[in-house]
Amino acid sequence: MVGASIKGGWGGTHYIEILKENKFAGPIYPINPKYVGQEIQGFKVYGSISSLPDDTPIDLGIISVPAKITPSIVEELGQKGVLFAHIFASGFSELGEDGIRLEQELLKKGKENNIRILGPNCMGVHSPTGRLSFSHRSSMTPGPVAFISQSGGLASRHLAYGTSMGYNFSKIVSLGNQIDLDLIDFVKFFADDPETKVISMYVENLKRDGHEFVKLLKETTLKKPVIIWKGGVSKGGQGAVMSHTGGLAGNIKLWKAMAQQTGVILVENFYEMSAMVNTYLTYPIPKTTGAAIFCGGGGLGVEGTDACERNNITVPTISKEMQTQINQFVRLINSNISNPFDLAGSGDRNAAVKTMEIVNKDPNLSLFIMLTTPEYMMSRDDNAKKYLEKLRAAIPADKLLISTPALHSVSQKTAESIIKYRAMVKPYNIMVYNTVDEAAKCCYRLWKYGKYLENNAHI
Amino acid sequence: MVGASIKGGWGGTHYIEILKENKFAGPIYPINPKYVGQEIQGFKVYGSISSLPDDTPIDLGIISVPAKITPSIVEELGQKGVLFAHIFASGFSELGEDGIRLEQELLKKGKENNIRILGPNCMGVHSPTGRLSFSHRSSMTPGPVAFISQSGGLASRHLAYGTSMGYNFSKIVSLGNQIDLDLIDFVKFFADDPETKVISMYVENLKRDGHEFVKLLKETTLKKPVIIWKGGVSKGGQGAVMSHTGGLAGNIKLWKAMAQQTGVILVENFYEMSAMVNTYLTYPIPKTTGAAIFCGGGGLGVEGTDACERNNITVPTISKEMQTQINQFVRLINSNISNPFDLAGSGDRNAAVKTMEIVNKDPNLSLFIMLTTPEYMMSRDDNAKKYLEKLRAAIPADKLLISTPALHSVSQKTAESIIKYRAMVKPYNIMVYNTVDEAAKCCYRLWKYGKYLENNAHI
Repeated sequence: MVGASIKGGWGGTHYIEILKENKFAGPIYPINPKYVGQEIQGFKVYGSISSLPDDTPIDLGIISVPAKITPSIVEELGQKGVLFAHIFASGFSELGEDGIRLEQELLKKGKENNIRILGPNCMGVHSPTGRLSFSHRSSMTPGPVAFISQSGGLASRHLAYGTSMGYNFSKIVSLGNQIDLDLIDFVKFFADDPETKVISMYVENLKRDGHEFVKLLKETTLKKPVIIWKGGVSKGGQGAVMSHTGGLAGNIKLWKAMAQQTGVILVENFYEMSAMVNTYLTYPIPKTTGAAIFCGGGGLGVEGTDACERNNITVPTISKEMQTQINQFVRLINSNISNPFDLAGSGDRNAAVKTMEIVNKDPNLSLFIMLTTPEYMMSRDDNAKKYLEKLRAAIPADKLLISTPALHSVSQKTAESIIKYRAMVKPYNIMVYNTVDEAAKCCYRLWKYGKYLENNAHI
Repeated sequence: MVGASIKGGWGGTHYIEILKENKFAGPIYPINPKYVGQEIQGFKVYGSISSLPDDTPIDLGIISVPAKITPSIVEELGQKGVLFAHIFASGFSELGEDGIRLEQELLKKGKENNIRILGPNCMGVHSPTGRLSFSHRSSMTPGPVAFISQSGGLASRHLAYGTSMGYNFSKIVSLGNQIDLDLIDFVKFFADDPETKVISMYVENLKRDGHEFVKLLKETTLKKPVIIWKGGVSKGGQGAVMSHTGGLAGNIKLWKAMAQQTGVILVENFYEMSAMVNTYLTYPIPKTTGAAIFCGGGGLGVEGTDACERNNITVPTISKEMQTQINQFVRLINSNISNPFDLAGSGDRNAAVKTMEIVNKDPNLSLFIMLTTPEYMMSRDDNAKKYLEKLRAAIPADKLLISTPALHSVSQKTAESIIKYRAMVKPYNIMVYNTVDEAAKCCYRLWKYGKYLENNAHI
């Protein structure tokens, strides 16, 4: 840790605090000539890289010093035999021409001294198995999700948000200005990483030739899904990208064409990215784009149907024969039994289960969306789990059983219900989306990925 | 209340319970030959309409009896001099041809006996000043919002949701099958109702000629905004409408053209409708579609800019001169001072205030969007209000100061922060949206309404 301060706090020292917090197994060396002989977080401070002990090989140097002295630090680290340098320091190409020259010098020093560089201007790596992170008190439970991010803030955010939504990470990499190790290197790594089941990324721009990226993505998507949130798709967004990571954002049309060619799943924002990751982790790939909607109320059924069809999910009418079967236990008054299923005319909660048992046989239907209030689903706590078991028995795991709360109010109690409800239904492979639009978008994208695999599996 | 039961609960009796709960001032007469002489909720039950006392004129009869006997009940109510019948009962045109005949008979009886009909198949009226409602424990505080709904469920939902989001209602009307009093009657009423500042509606279909509706809307939007959520815009949604209220949904292209002609604000779902209502109540009409975005983090700035521009709100770069002024207190490293404003390079919270003071002078900018976590805004409780006062002084009330939380996690604590935060900023005329997309959509629609008024004010 080059540039650690006894004053602690953000910048260099917080990496030492986090390593300690996570019981990192190897030795940790704070380096700062100002504090030689003193201790930071219980670790002895060294005055220089050359004075570090030689008994243990050093894997990683984290550099938090002013930008202009980073090249000499990289040189010293390389000469000490350190394999990787993570440059936390910023103030490079994102600031203009002087910064670009500094990056060129950094890269030269790295190559001359056999040390690979992550950054500069980045948060580094979160690796639960490596006990390494960039965020305090974050989940160190390993999971199936990789995240590659051109924004350090979004790296921390996905870590915290993903955990709160019920999934964990194999690794997260904050890329920064990518002068050496870049997006392509990490996609290659995660493509073959057995811990990683799905690769997500926030990308502002490419540092290498697009053809190489396309080829790599084609190979990777056959192994595991690749979810890309492309930042800087608008005119203003492209300007913001330039100022953020100093690169050209590229045209979104090209990215869309690239996604079409490679089976990549494109998403439009942070919440969509997280919902898409969770969708893949929760569900099998749907065989069709047909949805059955279950709700209590005609307006709600219309709303849900419009939301589905706006997002390429159809809500097909079921056969007259099936309708007749349902009509045996749901009276027509105040109901709709043709899909969407408004079962308000039947006070019986099991009517939904019985209806599902019937319509599960419709080959057009893969999505079974329960559009209701979380309060309703949680209202009979004792029987809630039995009810879920019945639902899951009616719609086996090869179909997608989906929950989309229709909020009646925004209150502390509602929020609590949703959080409890989400945890309760997770073991039944039911995902709780924020809206029907979100559910439909994610499921359609997953279906499209399935189609891509079908058409390209022979490659 | 015709068809009240001593068993209570849903259906007829709950209207009596709600009238009692809200201390309705006039007499209440439960009518049911089965329970003559007994009491429901402390009110004496009558066996027939003709046996009701003649001392007080009766304004409203609420009918909750099987559909086929409703015509004779309407006849009796009319003969008793009752002015309005609200038919809660369902099982009419939404079920097919027999139901259509029954509606024709109902209408005939109404006309013959000088009684106007609301419904059938509807929840009726919520009127705080009339102490009348269809929902238990709902807010009886009068407010500026009217809601006309072709769905009873959505009428209850908007009542509860709107209250939780900080606004109240002048009146809510659940229309049902609209055999007599219809959408047009109520738009006419609300257009001139001094209590109503904004008219919102959920519409599935029109019962009258579209030209009359267009003419009425043109007159109404010059007096107050009309927000229409059109249900049944998709193929499946049109089928669902047919089953719900028994009508043809109509083509969404026609509705869009109609909105263009009349200045109506069209929205796509429930949450958008509520956010649009709240936007109008919170903000002046923006003079431009330009936004300044304030955030801590480059990725967040890119995300916010893309979200704005996807929804017709631009994020224009400010002048070099203004950038130089900002650079006097925000260093360039780790910052963006050209818009979006990523002020992470300045640890000083007041940098946002000082930046706002400068960019408020840019004539392109009307929206000032603070993209941050609710936890951050609430983190310094003592100073939070002082900070808001400074922000509001920097951006006076003729501009839109907007908050869009960027969630870092979904937890009980986050939910609590947002709810408290929403209440805290409301007195400063700051609205808290769920996402930047939502904010941009609403503000663009409000701007467009303003343009319509500018172009049509001479009429």
